[in-house]
Amino acid sequence: MKCAVRFRYQHDNKHYPMKTPLHYLVAARQNEIAELEQLGSACALVSRMSQLIHALQKERGLSNIFLASEGSQGREELDQHQPWVQQAITELSATLEAFSLGLSGAHGARLFSAIAYALQGVEALPLLRAHRDGQRLTPEESTQAYMRLVAGCLTVVFEAADSACDPDISRTLVAMFHFMQGKELTGQERAAGAAAFASGVCSAARQHHWLHLIESQDKCFQVFADFASPAVAACWQTQNQSCADMAVIERLRRIACTSPPGSTLDWALNSVWFEACSLRLDAMHQIEALLAQELESLCDQKLALARTSLSQQLQRLQLPDGMPDPAPGQSADGMQFFNEPAPGMPWPMDLGCGPQLGRSILSLVQEQAQRLQLMQTEIDKARTSLKERKTIEQAKGVLMSYRQMSESDAYKLIRQTAMNQNRRMLDVAEAVLATVELLPAGVGTKA
Amino acid sequence: MKCAVRFRYQHDNKHYPMKTPLHYLVAARQNEIAELEQLGSACALVSRMSQLIHALQKERGLSNIFLASEGSQGREELDQHQPWVQQAITELSATLEAFSLGLSGAHGARLFSAIAYALQGVEALPLLRAHRDGQRLTPEESTQAYMRLVAGCLTVVFEAADSACDPDISRTLVAMFHFMQGKELTGQERAAGAAAFASGVCSAARQHHWLHLIESQDKCFQVFADFASPAVAACWQTQNQSCADMAVIERLRRIACTSPPGSTLDWALNSVWFEACSLRLDAMHQIEALLAQELESLCDQKLALARTSLSQQLQRLQLPDGMPDPAPGQSADGMQFFNEPAPGMPWPMDLGCGPQLGRSILSLVQEQAQRLQLMQTEIDKARTSLKERKTIEQAKGVLMSYRQMSESDAYKLIRQTAMNQNRRMLDVAEAVLATVELLPAGVGTKA
Repeated sequence: MKCAVRFRYQHDNKHYPMKTPLHYLVAARQNEIAELEQLGSACALVSRMSQLIHALQKERGLSNIFLASEGSQGREELDQHQPWVQQAITELSATLEAFSLGLSGAHGARLFSAIAYALQGVEALPLLRAHRDGQRLTPEESTQAYMRLVAGCLTVVFEAADSACDPDISRTLVAMFHFMQGKELTGQERAAGAAAFASGVCSAARQHHWLHLIESQDKCFQVFADFASPAVAACWQTQNQSCADMAVIERLRRIACTSPPGSTLDWALNSVWFEACSLRLDAMHQIEALLAQELESLCDQKLALARTSLSQQLQRLQLPDGMPDPAPGQSADGMQFFNEPAPGMPWPMDLGCGPQLGRSILSLVQEQAQRLQLMQTEIDKARTSLKERKTIEQAKGVLMSYRQMSESDAYKLIRQTAMNQNRRMLDVAEAVLATVELLPAGVGTKA
Repeated sequence: MKCAVRFRYQHDNKHYPMKTPLHYLVAARQNEIAELEQLGSACALVSRMSQLIHALQKERGLSNIFLASEGSQGREELDQHQPWVQQAITELSATLEAFSLGLSGAHGARLFSAIAYALQGVEALPLLRAHRDGQRLTPEESTQAYMRLVAGCLTVVFEAADSACDPDISRTLVAMFHFMQGKELTGQERAAGAAAFASGVCSAARQHHWLHLIESQDKCFQVFADFASPAVAACWQTQNQSCADMAVIERLRRIACTSPPGSTLDWALNSVWFEACSLRLDAMHQIEALLAQELESLCDQKLALARTSLSQQLQRLQLPDGMPDPAPGQSADGMQFFNEPAPGMPWPMDLGCGPQLGRSILSLVQEQAQRLQLMQTEIDKARTSLKERKTIEQAKGVLMSYRQMSESDAYKLIRQTAMNQNRRMLDVAEAVLATVELLPAGVGTKA
């Protein structure tokens, strides 16, 4: 009987020399390495996106000044700044070339789709600038347009984080995404504050929106702090504590958000506000640079580790003639398969088992399956925060569309419902989305 | 400004002719197609696994008869059956050759790792048979060994289901996995019942285990019914209702599980029981064959659809000279990017938007991003049942190991705790796993 099986494998070996259990073990490793390589490109892309977004946020601010002053201010600064944006775009393009466009691991299609959308926005940027330069946009329209562009770039970061195949890199990308999202909200707060001070008067609607932006930022930075390395989290804390601009920002927030609606706002505070926020955005970008460095070295480390580990695995299993041989371990401890706990899931495994006596392909398989399993569990944990964010944002979008409400009102409605029903916001958001799914079906059965 | 960007793209086009937004849009589609092709191979593998498992379940039953009769029965049947097992192994090997061993989409490493483990078991099968033929195993040891082999094969099915990149295929694979798992539990019940009848006496421990197997089967078939297509689910229901063997099985279950421990069991019922269970397993395998057919045609359909859709997309966007041109849509509706809802997540999107006026790359990007998003939501739903199963099985394994209890006792403990605390079993299982993680750390801080 054994001969029959052996013969079959040897027969197959002639035609396809790569298909024994050992080769699938190695293939699993190679698959991991290929995914890490793709993830490395995705991380490089995220770093470039961070640079481009920072440059766009600055351009958005300057465009606002330009438009609000009806062209009398900001022209020179814009002309000086725009080459930096071009530089960021050129570097992004170069990094995109490193992406292989074939099969790309988990969620490859979604990442590519997000890149396509972001590039679409980047290509339309010259047109946006032409509209702005011709003063055919209000400051609000211009802000909205740049927000959309930045949102497109951030979606790439989100998809990169969501597709990470390594727990540590996944955690760092989740930290990065939330930090970048928090920073973008700071940028939006700068614009909202500037508009409020420029109007010279307090409005309840603006105050609500402003407070919503502050709360949303805090949430983002909280998730960032939960997932960032202690080193980066400490830098962020130090920066916050020693930042003089932050004191200015907090004072102006208080003045603008606690004055009764209808009361006057000092127009002159606008430039103080704008300057403090801009310095803060620059400081935040330094934290992003730290995260980007960390991502790069993490990817290098993990890839080196995976490659070393693969070559060790091959060495341990190869005969002197360099050909892997599944037979020796086989005859020596073939029955071991039936006497040892099955690796991985979904079957109960004996976690209490002691160290293996000797090495065999089987123990390597068991080791690898358990490692992959633990990795997946860690990755799932990091992705949970992304899923939560996505679900709540989707539910907000649904409420904005179906109930014609603003983003901050939609958010408040979800939060209030959660408090009333003593449930998590995520549960309420999921319920909202589940309800939407029922709507088209309901319409269909009526017709 | 626009010229600068254009120039850059044209410059890049010379060196790398594949990198415009359009190309990433196409790359996303191609990535989907590549993943569907890999998924097609995985589905074919699942069908082969279903055949191999069915053959192994039969061999397990015959081996039991052979060992329990100390070699006086079952020899001829085994000799007749084993070529069928070999045939199933050969077909499995051929299907495995269709697998590309490079980067393989989501969870490729875990699928390969599971294949490596299963093949390890298949390679050890001749050795198991030698031990059995030499009567160096008890019937229980033999049953356990075949169970482990089948569990290894089922893990491949689990990982294939967990890695599916299409909602409909994912649902069908989830149905398939749970059906195969339920069928394996039926096979285990056959062995447990045979051992009980052979012993000639009722035992409380055997009765508990038996009832646990029945309950676990029912759960599996419930999930199967939730995820199977109406056609397959109906076949299964019809088969259950019109199945004479099922009546025999239910009568014997009642006799064996309700008689007081210590009372006599009619030894002669053993062959009646075994025969009825075996016929039922054969009938179940027909349902698996239906599911396998459905999987195959689903994969073919989806792949054909994706390919047609890609070529239509290319046609819609290509100039007569066959080169895609991003420019016309660009100049006509470049500002469209800034005025339309962002596709995909994690930003609120306007679900209420009407049909697009005209086609552009942008609307295609938006369409695709939304479609990918909805697909992921559907896939996540199907995967939830797999995650639940995995978590509960892992928690059972932890309890079995740390508290030295049987599988059915571990299951009961989780179920009882959930009832006492008015929580879902999944929540209790997650709490068990979270506690285990604390253990090594706890030991570390004490030292």
